[in-house]
Amino acid sequence: MRYYDDLNIGDRHAGGPVTVTEEDIVAFARQFDPQPFHLDAAAAEASIFRGLAASGWHTAALTMKMIVGGEGRLAGGFVGLGVDEVAWPTATRPGDTLRVESEVLEKRLTSRPDRGIARIRTTTYNQKGEVVQRLVANLLVPVRQPAEAAE
Amino acid sequence: MRYYDDLNIGDRHAGGPVTVTEEDIVAFARQFDPQPFHLDAAAAEASIFRGLAASGWHTAALTMKMIVGGEGRLAGGFVGLGVDEVAWPTATRPGDTLRVESEVLEKRLTSRPDRGIARIRTTTYNQKGEVVQRLVANLLVPVRQPAEAAE
Repeated sequence: MRYYDDLNIGDRHAGGPVTVTEEDIVAFARQFDPQPFHLDAAAAEASIFRGLAASGWHTAALTMKMIVGGEGRLAGGFVGLGVDEVAWPTATRPGDTLRVESEVLEKRLTSRPDRGIARIRTTTYNQKGEVVQRLVANLLVPVRQPAEAAE
Repeated sequence: MRYYDDLNIGDRHAGGPVTVTEEDIVAFARQFDPQPFHLDAAAAEASIFRGLAASGWHTAALTMKMIVGGEGRLAGGFVGLGVDEVAWPTATRPGDTLRVESEVLEKRLTSRPDRGIARIRTTTYNQKGEVVQRLVANLLVPVRQPAEAAE
């Protein structure tokens, strides 16, 4: 478990892999993003994606799953205050196997002595090494308190 | 169906409502963000959220659902190139009823004559009028072609 005090600029952590099936892509899209290019392979062929593509929000959710299950867990959990950037340079496709790499870009204290903020970039790759998502998030990270120092 | 040509800076559109249950919050979290404050009401009481809270990515996915099902549909669908900002000033809670309002902030042509980019801010509110998500996204929007002019 990492506290604010334990974070160093440049620290890197990995997560994943997770493999995405066509059924996963369609199930997520039915629930949250029911557009033809996320739902139906034939309709997707005629779209800008030229084939079935996962919703970008599905790639984001899978990325979160890999962050939470990956290395470098944060004390207090991963609590996102917000996100400075999400980009989807390549679509996630049926059968893709994704993995993530995170890097601490910045850390700063807040007005409260028990909380800091870490700016972390998480890059999600497919099995070909292509970037399917670039994410920069600001996370709340507890400062180590005297009572926790022995943890 | 709106083409690039039909978009005006300041255009506003609404979507929703959608109501979120505790079961929805826990089901999403199990699949994509299995942290105690998204999974278990008792554990959540002791966390920074002081009660069960939806994953921010769940709020984002529900926002997409309301955008896709709302007013102001775009020709070619909602294809996000990326996101300049996502912020979660207030957590989504069990029983919340959410709605969205979108506003066109900017539009610009790309190097391809058939495609433009619209910068759209979508704000997601709960039933108390509190902002649960602020999103600024860059969407690809087709330019109306001569063959489509009659649509």
